[in-house]
Amino acid sequence: MRVLELPPPPPLLLLLLALPCAARRPARYDPTWGSLDARPLPAWFHGAKFGVFIHWGVFSVPSFGSEWFWWYWQKEQRPKFVEFMKNNYPPGFKYEDFGPLFTAKFFNAKQWASILQASGAKYVVLTSKHHEGFPLWGSKHSWNWNAVDVGPKRDIVKELEVAVRNGTDLRFGLYYSLFEWFHPLFLEDASSSFREQRFPAAKTWPELYELVNTYRPEVLWSDGDGGAPDGYWNSTGFLAWLYNDSPVRDTVVTNDRWGAGSICKHGGFYTCSDRYNPGHLLPHKWENCMTIDKSSWGYRRDANICDYLTIEELVKQLVQTVACGGNLLMNIGPTLDGIISPIFEERLRQMGTWLKVNGEAIYESDPWRSQNDTATPDVWYTSNPKEKLVYATFLKWPISGKLLLGEPKATPEATEVKLLGHGQPLTWTLSKPTGIKIQLPPLTPHQLPCEWGWSLVLTRVT
Amino acid sequence: MRVLELPPPPPLLLLLLALPCAARRPARYDPTWGSLDARPLPAWFHGAKFGVFIHWGVFSVPSFGSEWFWWYWQKEQRPKFVEFMKNNYPPGFKYEDFGPLFTAKFFNAKQWASILQASGAKYVVLTSKHHEGFPLWGSKHSWNWNAVDVGPKRDIVKELEVAVRNGTDLRFGLYYSLFEWFHPLFLEDASSSFREQRFPAAKTWPELYELVNTYRPEVLWSDGDGGAPDGYWNSTGFLAWLYNDSPVRDTVVTNDRWGAGSICKHGGFYTCSDRYNPGHLLPHKWENCMTIDKSSWGYRRDANICDYLTIEELVKQLVQTVACGGNLLMNIGPTLDGIISPIFEERLRQMGTWLKVNGEAIYESDPWRSQNDTATPDVWYTSNPKEKLVYATFLKWPISGKLLLGEPKATPEATEVKLLGHGQPLTWTLSKPTGIKIQLPPLTPHQLPCEWGWSLVLTRVT
Amino acid sequence: MRVLELPPPPPLLLLLLALPCAARRPARYDPTWGSLDARPLPAWFHGAKFGVFIHWGVFSVPSFGSEWFWWYWQKEQRPKFVEFMKNNYPPGFKYEDFGPLFTAKFFNAKQWASILQASGAKYVVLTSKHHEGFPLWGSKHSWNWNAVDVGPKRDIVKELEVAVRNGTDLRFGLYYSLFEWFHPLFLEDASSSFREQRFPAAKTWPELYELVNTYRPEVLWSDGDGGAPDGYWNSTGFLAWLYNDSPVRDTVVTNDRWGAGSICKHGGFYTCSDRYNPGHLLPHKWENCMTIDKSSWGYRRDANICDYLTIEELVKQLVQTVACGGNLLMNIGPTLDGIISPIFEERLRQMGTWLKVNGEAIYESDPWRSQNDTATPDVWYTSNPKEKLVYATFLKWPISGKLLLGEPKATPEATEVKLLGHGQPLTWTLSKPTGIKIQLPPLTPHQLPCEWGWSLVLTRVT
Amino acid sequence: MRVLELPPPPPLLLLLLALPCAARRPARYDPTWGSLDARPLPAWFHGAKFGVFIHWGVFSVPSFGSEWFWWYWQKEQRPKFVEFMKNNYPPGFKYEDFGPLFTAKFFNAKQWASILQASGAKYVVLTSKHHEGFPLWGSKHSWNWNAVDVGPKRDIVKELEVAVRNGTDLRFGLYYSLFEWFHPLFLEDASSSFREQRFPAAKTWPELYELVNTYRPEVLWSDGDGGAPDGYWNSTGFLAWLYNDSPVRDTVVTNDRWGAGSICKHGGFYTCSDRYNPGHLLPHKWENCMTIDKSSWGYRRDANICDYLTIEELVKQLVQTVACGGNLLMNIGPTLDGIISPIFEERLRQMGTWLKVNGEAIYESDPWRSQNDTATPDVWYTSNPKEKLVYATFLKWPISGKLLLGEPKATPEATEVKLLGHGQPLTWTLSKPTGIKIQLPPLTPHQLPCEWGWSLVLTRVT
Repeated sequence: MRVLELPPPPPLLLLLLALPCAARRPARYDPTWGSLDARPLPAWFHGAKFGVFIHWGVFSVPSFGSEWFWWYWQKEQRPKFVEFMKNNYPPGFKYEDFGPLFTAKFFNAKQWASILQASGAKYVVLTSKHHEGFPLWGSKHSWNWNAVDVGPKRDIVKELEVAVRNGTDLRFGLYYSLFEWFHPLFLEDASSSFREQRFPAAKTWPELYELVNTYRPEVLWSDGDGGAPDGYWNSTGFLAWLYNDSPVRDTVVTNDRWGAGSICKHGGFYTCSDRYNPGHLLPHKWENCMTIDKSSWGYRRDANICDYLTIEELVKQLVQTVACGGNLLMNIGPTLDGIISPIFEERLRQMGTWLKVNGEAIYESDPWRSQNDTATPDVWYTSNPKEKLVYATFLKWPISGKLLLGEPKATPEATEVKLLGHGQPLTWTLSKPTGIKIQLPPLTPHQLPCEWGWSLVLTRVT
Repeated sequence: MRVLELPPPPPLLLLLLALPCAARRPARYDPTWGSLDARPLPAWFHGAKFGVFIHWGVFSVPSFGSEWFWWYWQKEQRPKFVEFMKNNYPPGFKYEDFGPLFTAKFFNAKQWASILQASGAKYVVLTSKHHEGFPLWGSKHSWNWNAVDVGPKRDIVKELEVAVRNGTDLRFGLYYSLFEWFHPLFLEDASSSFREQRFPAAKTWPELYELVNTYRPEVLWSDGDGGAPDGYWNSTGFLAWLYNDSPVRDTVVTNDRWGAGSICKHGGFYTCSDRYNPGHLLPHKWENCMTIDKSSWGYRRDANICDYLTIEELVKQLVQTVACGGNLLMNIGPTLDGIISPIFEERLRQMGTWLKVNGEAIYESDPWRSQNDTATPDVWYTSNPKEKLVYATFLKWPISGKLLLGEPKATPEATEVKLLGHGQPLTWTLSKPTGIKIQLPPLTPHQLPCEWGWSLVLTRVT
Repeated sequence: MRVLELPPPPPLLLLLLALPCAARRPARYDPTWGSLDARPLPAWFHGAKFGVFIHWGVFSVPSFGSEWFWWYWQKEQRPKFVEFMKNNYPPGFKYEDFGPLFTAKFFNAKQWASILQASGAKYVVLTSKHHEGFPLWGSKHSWNWNAVDVGPKRDIVKELEVAVRNGTDLRFGLYYSLFEWFHPLFLEDASSSFREQRFPAAKTWPELYELVNTYRPEVLWSDGDGGAPDGYWNSTGFLAWLYNDSPVRDTVVTNDRWGAGSICKHGGFYTCSDRYNPGHLLPHKWENCMTIDKSSWGYRRDANICDYLTIEELVKQLVQTVACGGNLLMNIGPTLDGIISPIFEERLRQMGTWLKVNGEAIYESDPWRSQNDTATPDVWYTSNPKEKLVYATFLKWPISGKLLLGEPKATPEATEVKLLGHGQPLTWTLSKPTGIKIQLPPLTPHQLPCEWGWSLVLTRVT
Repeated sequence: MRVLELPPPPPLLLLLLALPCAARRPARYDPTWGSLDARPLPAWFHGAKFGVFIHWGVFSVPSFGSEWFWWYWQKEQRPKFVEFMKNNYPPGFKYEDFGPLFTAKFFNAKQWASILQASGAKYVVLTSKHHEGFPLWGSKHSWNWNAVDVGPKRDIVKELEVAVRNGTDLRFGLYYSLFEWFHPLFLEDASSSFREQRFPAAKTWPELYELVNTYRPEVLWSDGDGGAPDGYWNSTGFLAWLYNDSPVRDTVVTNDRWGAGSICKHGGFYTCSDRYNPGHLLPHKWENCMTIDKSSWGYRRDANICDYLTIEELVKQLVQTVACGGNLLMNIGPTLDGIISPIFEERLRQMGTWLKVNGEAIYESDPWRSQNDTATPDVWYTSNPKEKLVYATFLKWPISGKLLLGEPKATPEATEVKLLGHGQPLTWTLSKPTGIKIQLPPLTPHQLPCEWGWSLVLTRVT
């Protein structure tokens, strides 16, 4: 995907981000970007901050290289993938033959839900259908090529929906790929430069309506335009229905991947590119979707421990992203038999542990006037405008025990500084020419409220 | 299926059967039965007499019980089928899981074509898609559930078409099931009493057009209305296109299975019921479709030799059917790996051996005024009106060596009688009150021109 | 195997063949060929004449090319076999991987027994273990590589033994391959020129004793010396135990394949080579072991109908073999799921039909002084010395209706000739310079007592 | 296994542990425990301290519940295992059917070796054959039930041996199970109360010799007596050969599991029971074999992150074990396709990270006069008598920043205390009535030389 570098927003726009969303619903949205883009994003999303992305599908069967396995093997014919198939499968073995091997034998939606809850995430987004075209529910429009007919023989989407809605406080979201790499009708449409719409008529539209009506996702994470414009996909028509008449019209959020040219420009929140993390504030709500495995969204058996981001790196992603007004959508890839592998579970639980201490600086927060500190690197700010609080999260504990913050303007008798999870007011001094110097408490490893990053809450600073 | 007993035709109608078909094409056929039923059957079909039916599909994988395996197992839950699955497959194994096992490993279309040629058949009809809904070609409307994407990974229809057209003098025909037992859109339509047509719109129509345009079948053998009327299937609309505009409009023949109520009433030739063999002349061209395996159309591994019709029984079917104005469509079921098992091959070659001697009495023949003899049982007549020949095929060699035929009116000095494959004129005498008594030649087992049935050709009888 | 052409026996030896076997058991046999070869063959075997050989094993899984599949593929690397594997299996697939696929799903020993009974055979010989080394019983010396642990998970030998012994009048026999192509201990022994006996000590001996003690076979059909002398196999030691002390010591018959150099020279009956059928009398009891499939003993999916011997050819084999003092051991190969395919069943039942009429000329018969006729080809003699009957079986029905037999010396007032299955005495005349000319009855196809060959019984001829 | 609680050793014996092993080899060892037990343990083992145990085999295919899967399922019929099989496999599926599924597809011995090296371990012990009886090398005595013939089709033992010997400084060791749960010859011997030795003669002995001669393991980790005495196993005979004549006679170490009654009593080092960790010094060299997964030695797909010991717990195991004179053998279970899962890799690398800092206190160390401190819990001692150093490893950093050690007797002007990885001499004071109080340096999280435990080195203490 293209990485779009947006310019930093003019200061005025910062206000928009903090605006209470959806003061009043307009009468109806028109099927035009002008109308649709004016819809305020439902407020819950900006407050949620942290979601878990789950990539699961037939690609989890080879679980080799990437979830783009089919494409790399058959279309690009990358040697690594071609060799893998040649060495391990009989001639003539096709991607479709992986379908029945996708057993989901140990898939336990309640267990997943309990791990999700423990991660501190506030929403989850499951790949209901990836570019391979295999729906994880019993799509009537993909008979015998979906998870109810082939492989798991279970309605994966339903099971997870029920477990998440009944057992957690997370919102339930669904990813859906518009195009499918190898669907013959899509290829036919493509060869006519998308003048015909056989594929969306036979597949995309009926499935999207079925999906929304049946599972009521509160995030609809569209992906994969296959080079076709939003007109081909009739995206505005669908979104108008979604916002006006669907069962989730009041709470659903969508992203910006609705046809060639729409990314980073139209729709709900912006994703712009995979692993998008601009490092500065954006004038529009955005999401950093990234994955713990550095090289793949789907599960890879061939991953080593060094292919996984460390918890230090993940905490840093979260802190940076939230400071810049984004949400973090952190991805895991379950195994073909439905296991969230222990290394993913560990990372998720570590995030939860960290958020338990520092969640106050993250959830429901807004960006502050500065995103990071100018004097000390690796310090990121958030704020709670209502309570007039500023949070500074630092990722390196200073050797001197003294943390210099160049941005906050403190008032000697009023400003108070505390370490989240510690509680005692810390002593600090004004620093020259600007900022404050905070004396951190001398804590042994076991006394630290958490590892990997620490949040200070500052009252009465400007 | 229902067996419809038609009354014997008035003598006048016999003429129609012998009429040269399609003297002139009408301007256009309307999409009404009135118009379509008036189309004369292309002449080749009546002359061909003998075709081979091939039932092949995913049902060939379990190859147990019947090609209705899926229905008997899942819908009717017949204990035999339920037990079979329970004893041999893991819990949760579905019919769809048989797909990848349908390897067609040894499928050699040229070899099939050579056996078909040797059988003496003049046309072949392959199940391009049975009620299970698995197309044997790469249907775009059944992505990942067809023989190109799953299992054989080959275009079975194409391969057989090419081999038959290039290597034999048989016509190429295709069977196609309108409905599909378990297609969710069909079930949805059915539950609305077929007021909606989601299934034919998404599946049947596009597939039928694709099939005819791509493979140009000269027999289109429709089957399986699923209880829906022909209006639901838009059968008249399709047939009007087939007869007016399709690439096979001049030569294609169709049958009578085009919707509830059409069987034995509308369409091309009548099939009326499976194994239909009325034993008397019909006023409309008909076909006896039957199968060598007494209990199944698809291959059954659990068949014993006594489950197969003997060659004597098969010759009898042919002789009876042709005498009554029908065609015989004799079915075989190849194995999952594409083998025509030796027992089927033996029967096919035996038919060919018999037809090599007696083909003159069969191919291009017409029914005679009597279908079978009144004086001697198991004697069946055909005729060649142009050459003024009558053929009497007898299935039992009389112990006395003298064959009494009660029907023919002979003239002492004019009438001549010969045994096909023998050649010498036979001596005969007039018989009282009617008929002739023919002295058969005393032949040792090795001198007999053939086994299982023998044809006499009578000249100048009335 | 080598074909050994033995000279015709001196007339004196003919008497030996007709001698009642085993007048008295000797005290004990020594483990020397001198002693063992002197053991009279138990009488039942010479009278039985017709047995069915069954080749079944892991080679029935690929069921391609030959039961020597493993050897041809891996050792000789014949392109046909190498290609087959490359095209159909993943790299690294080994012969051992066929084991679990040998399901025997439909194996029904009672059904087999009933077909065997219907064939007219008087004994059956099953491959309890072929050169592949996979025992069809739960051999303790081949743990996890036998039919009880892998594949069928049933004691095939036991099930067939019980069904044959309880449900038929056939004797139960077992084939056992001494060597195993790829057993590492055998290969090790071979590389030491068989100076060490690790393999027979670990495998052959314990299995042979286990087999005889558990299943009490009355035919022990040894095969496969792997180039090792009988001393390596300790064959004389084993046979001494078999003849002196085993539970089958009174009735067991063995063949002549007991080590390099023993074939056609030592042991019980001689087999000399596969498909051995010398066409003249031998001085020692022998057996013609042959297989209906011209190219393979194991089942081949790639066989066409022309690869199977016709019933005419099979009847001819039987008639020739018995006339020359041999037994016919006719082989079939069941499928991997335990089916005797219909074409084999047909041939077996046809043999039974023929023997029902002509068994009198076969079972318990002895060779006559001439084996075939000098005046008319394809006439073969047997005799019943006790009843002073001579049987002449002719394979072609003479066109003239008159059969000339050059060998029998008849007496006008005494000699009587009848056709088996017909019953009426036939008229005959003395023929010059020798023999008789018999007037066969003029029978229609339906009146013939049988097809494929006919036996005449002659009384009071010399 | 039984847990044997040994009494603490008399002080004299402590010397033995520190003695240089095998000053001179005796002429020959006799096959008696008296002689064999007198053999000094090769010195490398006591110095190595930390080994990695690898449980890999066919049990890695179900990878469910435990490596005792076969036993629990078939013998004990534990519901959890019976259900698992019933729900996921066809009826009649046997444990042997898992064999071909053991692909080892991604097994890369060099990668394993590099992880092992990074773990800081000094030896590795691989299950060359577990109780299931499946050798990971091409055992000639288990034809077609070993990793070369079935499943991986590779010599796993060889590949790992070469990679470890060429690429690391670890010693290569092998685990070998004497008995096999279900071997028919073992069961037969057992039913004769082990009066017969068919099983060891056919399997155990030839395999043990083959293993030692081919792969020259320097640890031979025997296991599983199946209730049979060492006489049945001829353990003393084998060990005499191993110590006198085998290619590893100079360096091999063995354990104590050589027949019923030998554990914790005879052989080389004592293992006494699984997870043996007595908490005090033993008079005989011992090993704590334990596994990171709390419930299983083989890989379990159904393990959650909380089923794995944390790195804190693992460091504690190591520190306690070494302090008490033992070695730690820490187990991992690779997946069926040969992956050391990331969570195991993480734990191994964490151990390596810790040992990089604190290895001086572990490797080549000896127990000190006290094993742990009396004044402060969770402090464990080791020593380097040659350098007259004492190491105190503490697992909790005192909140006060001052660590009180009750055991060491210090001398004010001579004694020096340093933190490993830090380097600066620490200030300390004598404590009353005994011991010293050490001022730990105030380090930020990033300054700490390591996490999870810290070692102090004390010079000139007694």
